[in-house]
Amino acid sequence: MKFIRLLRISSIQSYKILFYIYKMIKISILGAGNVGSHLFNKFFETKNIQVIQWYNRSIKSIEHHKNKVNIIDKIENLIEVDIYLLCLSDDSLASIIPQIQTLKGIVAHTAGSVPMNILNGIKNHGVFYPLQTFSKNSPISFTNIPICIEGNNKHSIKILTSLAQNISKNIKHIDSKQRQGLHIAAVFVNNFTNHLYQIGGEICEELNVSFDLLIPLIQETAKKIETTSPDKAQTGPAIRNDQNTIQNHMDLLSIPTFKDLYLTLTHSIQKNNEHSKL
Amino acid sequence: MKFIRLLRISSIQSYKILFYIYKMIKISILGAGNVGSHLFNKFFETKNIQVIQWYNRSIKSIEHHKNKVNIIDKIENLIEVDIYLLCLSDDSLASIIPQIQTLKGIVAHTAGSVPMNILNGIKNHGVFYPLQTFSKNSPISFTNIPICIEGNNKHSIKILTSLAQNISKNIKHIDSKQRQGLHIAAVFVNNFTNHLYQIGGEICEELNVSFDLLIPLIQETAKKIETTSPDKAQTGPAIRNDQNTIQNHMDLLSIPTFKDLYLTLTHSIQKNNEHSKL
Repeated sequence: MKFIRLLRISSIQSYKILFYIYKMIKISILGAGNVGSHLFNKFFETKNIQVIQWYNRSIKSIEHHKNKVNIIDKIENLIEVDIYLLCLSDDSLASIIPQIQTLKGIVAHTAGSVPMNILNGIKNHGVFYPLQTFSKNSPISFTNIPICIEGNNKHSIKILTSLAQNISKNIKHIDSKQRQGLHIAAVFVNNFTNHLYQIGGEICEELNVSFDLLIPLIQETAKKIETTSPDKAQTGPAIRNDQNTIQNHMDLLSIPTFKDLYLTLTHSIQKNNEHSKL
Repeated sequence: MKFIRLLRISSIQSYKILFYIYKMIKISILGAGNVGSHLFNKFFETKNIQVIQWYNRSIKSIEHHKNKVNIIDKIENLIEVDIYLLCLSDDSLASIIPQIQTLKGIVAHTAGSVPMNILNGIKNHGVFYPLQTFSKNSPISFTNIPICIEGNNKHSIKILTSLAQNISKNIKHIDSKQRQGLHIAAVFVNNFTNHLYQIGGEICEELNVSFDLLIPLIQETAKKIETTSPDKAQTGPAIRNDQNTIQNHMDLLSIPTFKDLYLTLTHSIQKNNEHSKL
């Protein structure tokens, strides 16, 4: 009786193990910058994903992970897995591609601005582009991050989509042209917006008031677009064409590049509004 | 016995009533734009504040509140209260001030860009500036909104501070020069940032992808500054001086004002970074 019970448990377990082996996606990550590090941490803790190898040109920066994953600094040491995720700068990407032409798994890059066809020599390839900003020390929740998938064939698309579904519920299939455009949009809403925060911070510093005063306003501005489209949410002296305030602000701003930006942005808001009235 | 108990309850209640009358701040609001409407709703539900009158040039837009507050459209019908809050456009402010010179309460305006001394003719006056963006249909939590207070004497400062403390835990005493500077900073981080969101939205529209794709990125950008200063959070082709990507983006952008903005912002990021390296 005891023996049969043991057998039963064991067969259920084997079934489970087989099931997981079947569903498990084996990946290797190339690169240990912000994107590579965040993806490693996320995939490492994800049940159906097994990170087999992590490549980085400098092995030092990933050495502390050697108990979790096989760390390597030579491309020729890569073994066969389902997906190789290239989390590299555009320059490193260009120099590594000739060395990975014969890999049997799917090779996918993670760059917004690079077209998929840069990987054309590789049999199965694609793009796995998480549309988010990653900083090394800020933990991030992947659940809502849009993951933009592209693949050179049905197999690549299917496996890359399955990988994405394990970490996010927001998967989009977009082509290289759309992704490049999205990357420009991301530069506007992320890089350029952050620069405006920086200018806000410098103005505060000059006034001897804390930058913290601006944080609720910054966050409300970002929150509002969930319910109000940006063109409806636009307020301020530019859209009201309030010349007194604009002139007053120009007189008060002392740094020439800030003056330039103020005028260019004011002009763009007014131009855009004219355009939307047509 | 019963009588004594009743008396006791009643004396406690009278004490409470007296206590509230003592602490209660009576206010009237002038103006029913976004700021006026949000402040009315907030003060109306706040225990220690009594909104006595609400003035608007057009009575129609506040008529549906007539069961809650005495609504008026004539300045001469204003009765005496502790604080008159002027929630008016800069133009209306200028035209109403001559008519309210003899008011006995504290008269405070709520405008970021207007110096306090515009109210100089009024005995007790000041500024009550909530540093936030208000839209008519977006409910807002006041708890963390910085309220910037200025007053022409100790009494004005004390009563305006007390009013602010009833709705927010983030009160700052700042002078007119600081407030005007903060208003410029607010234009950068709110009005101009929203315009960058709008550009992001237009790029998405052109690509036939949903603007929703950008929302997690927008919100992470705004969240990050809680823990990382904007100059440390700056990423992207401009700060990396990645000329290939910049040129690629310039080639892809078709609208001249967006090209202009891209270059001006890129230039400003690079200039600022140079400056911070010195």
